[in-house]
Order: sequence, then C-alpha cells, then structure tokens
Amino acid sequence: MGMHDVTDQVAGAVKESGAVNGICHISMLHSTAGLMICAKSADAQADIMRDIEKAVPTRVDFKHRETASDAGGHIKTAFAGSQISLPVEDGRLLLGDEQAIVFAEFDGPRPRNIIVTVYAD
Amino acid sequence: MGMHDVTDQVAGAVKESGAVNGICHISMLHSTAGLMICAKSADAQADIMRDIEKAVPTRVDFKHRETASDAGGHIKTAFAGSQISLPVEDGRLLLGDEQAIVFAEFDGPRPRNIIVTVYAD
Amino acid sequence: MGMHDVTDQVAGAVKESGAVNGICHISMLHSTAGLMICAKSADAQADIMRDIEKAVPTRVDFKHRETASDAGGHIKTAFAGSQISLPVEDGRLLLGDEQAIVFAEFDGPRPRNIIVTVYAD
Repeated sequence: MGMHDVTDQVAGAVKESGAVNGICHISMLHSTAGLMICAKSADAQADIMRDIEKAVPTRVDFKHRETASDAGGHIKTAFAGSQISLPVEDGRLLLGDEQAIVFAEFDGPRPRNIIVTVYAD
Repeated sequence: MGMHDVTDQVAGAVKESGAVNGICHISMLHSTAGLMICAKSADAQADIMRDIEKAVPTRVDFKHRETASDAGGHIKTAFAGSQISLPVEDGRLLLGDEQAIVFAEFDGPRPRNIIVTVYAD
Repeated sequence: MGMHDVTDQVAGAVKESGAVNGICHISMLHSTAGLMICAKSADAQADIMRDIEKAVPTRVDFKHRETASDAGGHIKTAFAGSQISLPVEDGRLLLGDEQAIVFAEFDGPRPRNIIVTVYAD
C-alpha cells in the first residue's frame, strides 16, 4: 500500500521525447495499482488512500480469491482509475501548481510497469 | 446490472482501423452505464460491481426520479467513469496481461452504444 | 460546493478551434475541484454530489490541514477525477444525448481554470 508521486518521472519522459505540443498518456499495466491526479501534499495523499481503504475495506468476503489484499486491490483500482491523459504544451506537462501524478499501490510493494506515451506533431 | 468484458470487440475495432501507433478512445454514450479498466477475472469484476452497489445503494430518496435503478445508475456511472483512452502500439491496444475493458451496466439490460475512435498517423 | 454544467463552454471552444476530427482534452488545474461526464439532469447531478459527500464526509480528522473543506476536497477530487478526453467528430464533441460535462466544486466558490485542448489534423 502507498501513494507515490511520479510526476517528475513522467515529466522527464515527456522532456526526453522532445514533444512540443500534444497529449501525454500514462498507463498502469496492472489491475491492483492505480494512477490518479492528486494534490502534491503527502498528507492529502495519505487522506485519499485512507478514504479509498474505507470505501473498499480489505476483507475476506470477496468472490475473487487470491489474497484479501489482491482481491481488494482490484476493486480499489477500479475506483481510483489506472489511465491518465494530460496535455503537453510548449514541451511541458500541463498540470496545476498543486497537482501531482500519483501511483497508488493497492497490493504491494512489487515491481510495477507504467507506460508513458506522447503523441505530438 | 452486470459487468461485460468488451476487450475483444474494442481490440477488433482497433485492428480493423489499420492504425499502427496512436490513441484509442472509448466512449459510452449513456449516463447510466460505465466503462472501466478492470481485472480480467469475472469474480473480481463481480466484487467491483458489489462494492459500487454498496457505495451507491439503489434506493428511493433520490432527487432525480425516473426509477430508483435509473437514478442510482447516474451516480454509479459518475463514480465508475464512462470514457477511456488507451495507447495503440504496433497495431495493438496496450493493456496489461490481467487488464480488461469492462462495460458496467447500471440500469439495464438495454441496448447501449459504445464508440471506439482511433487517432493515428 | 456545487455542480456546474460546462458543456456549452467546452463545445464553444471546440467550435472556435475549427477542428473537424480529433480529441478534445479538458483539464481542471486545481486539486479541490473535479470534472465528470454526468447526466444532464440537475437533480441527478445533485444526487451525485450528495453521494460523493456521503462517501467522503467533510470532517476534522484529516492529516492534511488547511480547512476541513479543503482537505475533504482533495479526496473528493481524487474520487471524481479531474481530466476528461472526448472525441471530436465532424467539428462536434461526441457526447450522448443525456450526457453533460460537469465541473464539481468541492471547496469554493472560487475562480477555477479549466483548460480545453483540441488535437486534430
């Protein structure tokens, strides 16, 4: 479990792509980890994780049975979302000053693959 | 109510488009049915539907009154989301091995229109 | 707090862009206000806001402390989402007859910046 700010890594991939104006798409390739646009504040991110856990408690009455954490992680991911699109403008990700791209681990820690794709002229 | 895996139909539309690299956008054109990236497991999908029903019980105290199922369906759809973007790479939808595109019926069954649009060079 | 239908403003920006076929991306640049595709019905929108408030009550046990409304707004925004992509077809936003683009204010009222970007040939 945990919230991880990946804004700098995504922004770095956008910069490396050399794209000037376009769309950046960020894909989580797993079904028990999410991607969200959140506040930068680590406290706000902890509050978000706590309320997701409250809405979808890890418990033992799931139909899908691997581990309770895995089964609950699937539901949390569906609630949180796992795909984000953002505009790229003048070579930079367009985000508000208080916004961050956050990877939400709902069944780990384990290695996760996040794909950043940039479409530009 | 029900979760329906539409991954193969969307992947078929992408293939038919002949697109090699680009973005695939999937639109649900209704406000009482959602689109989500979920686990492939039907049991995990059933768990997701049950937790959405728990977060937004179908009940009779809605302001919007057609049927309770319709009124609740609007809220469930807003929670679940009804638009998805995915990368297309080398002619294929980029999805993780355990991910599926799922159409969530919150007030049916009834005919639903899902639009798949592919943007590519 | 409040739900505001911004469909006409977004559709106007798309028309003004002169784009014929492409993608429209809508960004909320704040972390305490969301963007959702909802039913057009104002009553359904009020029901949605009420259920978001029920899932994430504004309260005083947050880690993130500015005001309770600000702290709760961060969580509501993460649940609701703050980025939308929609297809543009023949110069128009592709939306269902009952769908609207809604800006959800979770900590206002205050001025908010929403960026509409259109990618087209």
